[in-house]
This record gives sequence, C-alpha cells and structure tokens, in this order.
Amino acid sequence: MSFAVNAVGRVESSLRDRADAPRQGDEGAPEAVVVFEDAVVEALGGLAPGAEVLLLTWLDRADRGTLVVHPRGDLTRPPAGVFATRSPDRPNPIGLHRVTILALDGTRMRVSRLEALDGTPVLDVKPVLDRIADR
Amino acid sequence: MSFAVNAVGRVESSLRDRADAPRQGDEGAPEAVVVFEDAVVEALGGLAPGAEVLLLTWLDRADRGTLVVHPRGDLTRPPAGVFATRSPDRPNPIGLHRVTILALDGTRMRVSRLEALDGTPVLDVKPVLDRIADR
Repeated sequence: MSFAVNAVGRVESSLRDRADAPRQGDEGAPEAVVVFEDAVVEALGGLAPGAEVLLLTWLDRADRGTLVVHPRGDLTRPPAGVFATRSPDRPNPIGLHRVTILALDGTRMRVSRLEALDGTPVLDVKPVLDRIADR
Repeated sequence: MSFAVNAVGRVESSLRDRADAPRQGDEGAPEAVVVFEDAVVEALGGLAPGAEVLLLTWLDRADRGTLVVHPRGDLTRPPAGVFATRSPDRPNPIGLHRVTILALDGTRMRVSRLEALDGTPVLDVKPVLDRIADR
C-alpha cells in the first residue's frame, strides 16, 4: 500500500548538507524559517509565537533502503534496526522536529533549533500535546 | 512536490470506525497489535517490551481537504486551523501515537493504548527521545 504525501511548505535554513546538520535540534541547530504554500494558510489559524509544535518533514536526502544502522553513525556501537533509532535513513523518511514558533507572518513561520536542511519539504504541523492538552 | 509513502505494517485493533475511537490514546484506547511487513523485520532490531515509541500511521479514513475544524469536534469552540489541532482531517493525515511496547514476537508488536482504527497503515516507528536520549 502506497500513499502520496504533498509538501505543504519547505524549510529555509543555513544548513546545506547532512555533514553540517546536528543529529538533533537541541544539539546546536540554528533557527530556520518554514515557508508554507499559500493554499494552506488557513490551516495555520490559531498558531502564535511561543507555541511549541511538532514539524513533520520529508527527509528527501535520506536513503530509504537502510534498515540497520550504527546509532548516531558511531561504528563502535552495535548496529540497531532503524525503528529503534532516529536515523534519517529509513523506509519512510519522515522527520519529526519539536520546535518553538518565534514569529508567524502570513505563510512564513520562524522557528527555533531546527536540524532539517535547507529545502526540506514540510508535511504537517501538530501542537505538542503535553502543553496543549485540550487539543 | 509529492512523495510516496509505503506502509511498513498495519494495525489490528478492536476499533472499527471513527465513532468508536477515542480522540487520544490516553482517553480509553485499547491495546492493539501492529503487524509489520516481513521485509522490514530487521528494522525492529533493538526494540523490546517496555520501550516507549512513537508510531507514525497513515490515517486512511481522514479528509485531506479540511483546513479548519472545531477543536475536538466541539461546535461551541471557535474554529482553528488544523495545524493547531490534532484533528485526523488535514492535508497529510499522518497519525502520531506514543505507545509502550508490551510484546514483540517476530513481526507482531503488541502495544498499549492505541487510538488508531483496525487496518490503519503504519509508516514508521521512532524511539521517544526523552527516554532514549542517546539515539
């Protein structure tokens, strides 16, 4: 079974390739901007600076054939299945990034600490449930 | 830009339709079983009962054209953009479910409290970072 995901936006970042990118957002990732498609601007209603959200991205430079990796690329660590790691290389390379909204102006959203590369397609935004418990 | 996601497994659950399903897993969702494709069994290496993981699913009964909803379907609440809610109806209906692995036998994984419906395709499994901080 296969389904089509459509980018609803993309990342603008100073991170240009995987060698530059920290492994997680809290390991030195820079601020970035998500530029949404005009067609989904209504879906942003209710979001505001200060909110913590989960960004779902499509890690378009990942290798989808990888099933086993050395965690964090450390060859001294025993190999693990990708479902037990956050490796970008996995059958469906969906990135999950917890960020804080710093500014939101129309379809441009500036966010904290995002380890996604420049140009990465964005698939979805979800509120963090442990902060917005009633949604 | 569009990308193809491929199911790596599917949910077996007593929940048959949306009217039965709780809105979140911690609101009375039952245990469920995820049956993975044989082709991805290696990707499960390193997972074990007791681990908390994030399941990413494809909410195949969602309406992808919905951009604005009343949160939790409550018409007394003001409408909000779907990116500010956890509504299954959204442009890319990717479900995100935090569960505990109860048993893992080959390609069958029994998990706690899953609000996804029977037959829901599974796209990915990721460790919860705040518990497995080194991955």
